[in-house]
Amino acid sequence: MAGPAYTRLDVDERRRRLLELGARLFTEHAYDELSMAKIAKQAGISKALLYHYFPSKEAYFVATLEEKANELQQRTEPDPSLEPMEQLSASLDAYLGWIQENAGSYDKLIRNAGAAPEVRALLDRVRTTTAKRILEGLSPNGAPSPVLRTAVRGWLGFMDGACLDWVNHNDVEREVLHGLLLSTLLAAVLAAGEATTAT
Amino acid sequence: MAGPAYTRLDVDERRRRLLELGARLFTEHAYDELSMAKIAKQAGISKALLYHYFPSKEAYFVATLEEKANELQQRTEPDPSLEPMEQLSASLDAYLGWIQENAGSYDKLIRNAGAAPEVRALLDRVRTTTAKRILEGLSPNGAPSPVLRTAVRGWLGFMDGACLDWVNHNDVEREVLHGLLLSTLLAAVLAAGEATTAT
Repeated sequence: MAGPAYTRLDVDERRRRLLELGARLFTEHAYDELSMAKIAKQAGISKALLYHYFPSKEAYFVATLEEKANELQQRTEPDPSLEPMEQLSASLDAYLGWIQENAGSYDKLIRNAGAAPEVRALLDRVRTTTAKRILEGLSPNGAPSPVLRTAVRGWLGFMDGACLDWVNHNDVEREVLHGLLLSTLLAAVLAAGEATTAT
Repeated sequence: MAGPAYTRLDVDERRRRLLELGARLFTEHAYDELSMAKIAKQAGISKALLYHYFPSKEAYFVATLEEKANELQQRTEPDPSLEPMEQLSASLDAYLGWIQENAGSYDKLIRNAGAAPEVRALLDRVRTTTAKRILEGLSPNGAPSPVLRTAVRGWLGFMDGACLDWVNHNDVEREVLHGLLLSTLLAAVLAAGEATTAT
């Protein structure tokens, strides 16, 4: 029994290391500059073995982004033991922490989002999950109004725009950005609520 | 003198019509489905003549987007005879009107933004100009604080996210969206101002 289990773990572990290497390489180099041959050399394995794990450079790239996206989703998972507003604040803080650690990947991810359909699909999935989490926190007892949905979708765009500016300029304190994001979300939600009540 | 002037106009006019046709074709069809041969057929001209105007399909696509972007910039040009807040409100209304008329192009432009480096560059240029306009309106007498810059960049992302949701769902009144966008910008600017005063 120990044999197969050991082999399995080995495969998973190698895959995990390849994804870590990929996240670094795709951040440090332009996509077009990297070849599967160069990547295999960096990984210290044969090209054939690299292709065994990932059928193409694009598949490898998408897999590294998916790994990063999963990590992000886990780290920003709302803590149900907190009040809704505290949940949001804590998730947002975790999100900013993740961006700080992965500034290069984040910039590439957002800027090159349209480069591959798989990357667009991945980003759409992350945004849909995040919007759903926020909307469930804001209107736990039913479907949100269309304008509230629009406000939350808009705010996710605000996060992207503000965080991209933040990582590119690096001249705003993380707590200041956190405050800006949170106040803007509250204002957008409030404006959406007033629009719903008014009509 | 009349001869060359007429010929010149003719060339400009054909280019203009080709850009109009392109805007329609690239909205109605997937980019990969269109070929220069199909486009030439639709335009009722030879492929050779089409290539005379645009060296490649990508160049043609980028030119149609540039035409749209120029149109958008012109229509949203702030009116200096109005008060700053009224300028902003009027430009925003013009922006929403443009999106309503060009819903298909807008969706493709934002969603496929990363597909070609030229399109990314074009979008970056539009965003930079728009951010500059807003920041000049907000702090006419000097450089904006970093956090105000971040807030405005974030708000441009908010516009993209909210407008994309708006054209895709078509269930929010244009005036409601206008109000949401404007209140959110004011709130973000206010939050940025508070952050600057506090530090």
